[in-house]
Amino acid sequence: MPTVTMERVEMFSACHRLHSKELSDAENKETFGKCNHVNGHGHNYVWKVKLRGEVDPVNGMVYDLAKLKKEMNLVLDTVDHRNLDVDVEFFKTTVSTSENVAIYMYETLKSVMSNPSVLYKVTIEETPKNVFTYKGK
Amino acid sequence: MPTVTMERVEMFSACHRLHSKELSDAENKETFGKCNHVNGHGHNYVWKVKLRGEVDPVNGMVYDLAKLKKEMNLVLDTVDHRNLDVDVEFFKTTVSTSENVAIYMYETLKSVMSNPSVLYKVTIEETPKNVFTYKGK
Amino acid sequence: MPTVTMERVEMFSACHRLHSKELSDAENKETFGKCNHVNGHGHNYVWKVKLRGEVDPVNGMVYDLAKLKKEMNLVLDTVDHRNLDVDVEFFKTTVSTSENVAIYMYETLKSVMSNPSVLYKVTIEETPKNVFTYKGK
Amino acid sequence: MPTVTMERVEMFSACHRLHSKELSDAENKETFGKCNHVNGHGHNYVWKVKLRGEVDPVNGMVYDLAKLKKEMNLVLDTVDHRNLDVDVEFFKTTVSTSENVAIYMYETLKSVMSNPSVLYKVTIEETPKNVFTYKGK
Amino acid sequence: MPTVTMERVEMFSACHRLHSKELSDAENKETFGKCNHVNGHGHNYVWKVKLRGEVDPVNGMVYDLAKLKKEMNLVLDTVDHRNLDVDVEFFKTTVSTSENVAIYMYETLKSVMSNPSVLYKVTIEETPKNVFTYKGK
Amino acid sequence: MPTVTMERVEMFSACHRLHSKELSDAENKETFGKCNHVNGHGHNYVWKVKLRGEVDPVNGMVYDLAKLKKEMNLVLDTVDHRNLDVDVEFFKTTVSTSENVAIYMYETLKSVMSNPSVLYKVTIEETPKNVFTYKGK
Repeated sequence: MPTVTMERVEMFSACHRLHSKELSDAENKETFGKCNHVNGHGHNYVWKVKLRGEVDPVNGMVYDLAKLKKEMNLVLDTVDHRNLDVDVEFFKTTVSTSENVAIYMYETLKSVMSNPSVLYKVTIEETPKNVFTYKGK
Repeated sequence: MPTVTMERVEMFSACHRLHSKELSDAENKETFGKCNHVNGHGHNYVWKVKLRGEVDPVNGMVYDLAKLKKEMNLVLDTVDHRNLDVDVEFFKTTVSTSENVAIYMYETLKSVMSNPSVLYKVTIEETPKNVFTYKGK
Repeated sequence: MPTVTMERVEMFSACHRLHSKELSDAENKETFGKCNHVNGHGHNYVWKVKLRGEVDPVNGMVYDLAKLKKEMNLVLDTVDHRNLDVDVEFFKTTVSTSENVAIYMYETLKSVMSNPSVLYKVTIEETPKNVFTYKGK
Repeated sequence: MPTVTMERVEMFSACHRLHSKELSDAENKETFGKCNHVNGHGHNYVWKVKLRGEVDPVNGMVYDLAKLKKEMNLVLDTVDHRNLDVDVEFFKTTVSTSENVAIYMYETLKSVMSNPSVLYKVTIEETPKNVFTYKGK
Repeated sequence: MPTVTMERVEMFSACHRLHSKELSDAENKETFGKCNHVNGHGHNYVWKVKLRGEVDPVNGMVYDLAKLKKEMNLVLDTVDHRNLDVDVEFFKTTVSTSENVAIYMYETLKSVMSNPSVLYKVTIEETPKNVFTYKGK
Repeated sequence: MPTVTMERVEMFSACHRLHSKELSDAENKETFGKCNHVNGHGHNYVWKVKLRGEVDPVNGMVYDLAKLKKEMNLVLDTVDHRNLDVDVEFFKTTVSTSENVAIYMYETLKSVMSNPSVLYKVTIEETPKNVFTYKGK
């Protein structure tokens, strides 16, 4: 059967502060600039999930989109209208750069998918000008 | 010569209904949900065609864009302002999911291109949130 | 209190055929061109609703967005993943141009709003290149 | 001279929490839902400024765009990569709904413009689906 | 009959240089900055045309879109893939700011429309961040 | 460490004319059509830069974005508000198709990056409908 890539796009609104516990305050300010501002800031993160697999000959689908939406919602519930650094366990020890947000979204989605083998890549658009993609290890 | 990817973007408006002849009515409803609604629905499909080839040293182009537009128009004429299920032979036996629309657009374009070897991939955006890509077998 | 305009944007996917019962087949073809194609076609319609009113001094809002979403969903349920001409009573006697879709969406939303006096205008983007706005009589 | 409207578009990233001091905790939760989440959330706010005035016959401009950018930057510096509720005096007594963000941006810009009489309206896109416009009193 | 606004969106690619014959070279540089660069620069101008009129009770339209496209093309032919300052008579005596481009597009379209009374406004997006609208005198 | 792709998006406005010195005037007109118009035309070019590398375990970044912006600005200064054919040495002997613009932007950025090994690909959107990508040799 032919192999097709399907992508689903969602959005979530969250806040965070870039601040690494392994750096001094001066190093944090030097490294992260205004993203290190003490009271935080936020984004409308665009989240794109790409699956890749064979098209089912009977229903013509790579993956059941209704199921994917439910699985993505499980992940979105952990970040949407949240403070990443305070509300998400993963970011208590990992600085919440968009590189790491992409990794978190990929790994968390993978852990709840009924067929994780089709997960191909995850993209996070922090802003329309800054975009990050993770394809797993 | 350097290899460059060029992409051309077009749009078409079509209607369809997701309904597989190999499934019962109940299974169709279960599988396709509101997309199985009996009187159909429609989309503005965004169609992206990616070519990949060496840049011609004289004219600096991968492919003559005027020629590509004509070839894409031959394919667009079969789907634009059409009912995919009724008006397109391919979808009389194949359910018109966007996975299969991507395959149809790829194969049909390939069959009319003067140099089909540069065809790299075809993307169909059913909506801005659901995107499908086919790269051939 | 200051007056602010708030806009909510949603999308629906529907199909239709432009065909006026008051015109002959030849006149319909002449008037509507490919939009008159007998088996129909479809669009992802973008629906924008603008409200205009005073900002509530306690909650800082013009209108409860959660309530507006529910009211808009009542209207969306009548058109999303539907055939406008077949499934919507209004279009059985009115040709489903986007001018008339805008009027239908405006009037139907107005009839279900808890406070219809703040409804300011309704916009329908049939495609990103064709946009229609109705402000009521 | 002919009158033309000119619009300049910028973006800023900020965080906030919808919480009115005039409401109880239960009322706040009821009124603002997930936007009332205790640790906050954030947005990429799109800020559009519209000026309206006569075109200068010599330089063909309504307003010097370089000057407008500088004046807009004075306002952006107060909100970009900031926590609206904590960092901006105005929101210490006013709930930071986008209605009120639009009012704040309008009034603050007006106070720093060399020719405030041409300021026509200010739009805040909290997300691509929620848009707020203020035209002054 | 109800009044509806319809908008058609097109694009053209042109080049120009901001340089007023009524200003000295130093004043031009001071006024227009990098837009005064001697060898010119260019834009993909987005052109939006808004018509406003009553909906025809028989065909459900404000204006025949096929006719509008033809009329807009007459205007586009004068600017698309052109040098505004060299190829367009109007800009030989008028500096080609987007304010003036909007005025030119409005007046030229008005002069070729079969029913110019419905022309409501013309918008020119020089870039996605700089937008200009003219509504006539 | 996990490998992540990061993309930064910028825009520049430039003019050019497609005209190959290795072709006759008739051949140039035949090959490039309206893009060969003698007085030139222009575009808002969207420039996307993709880097690919391991995420730094301390600061969570693939590359310092502030540094990338500075490096990209060095390249943008050579093309923004410029005439590509006249102002850029590279295009005096190479026809300024977007294929070649992509190659120029890639090679020039590579030559100024502090760590060019992470440069993955460069994309040029000449218009929203024509997109070109170069990944190096």
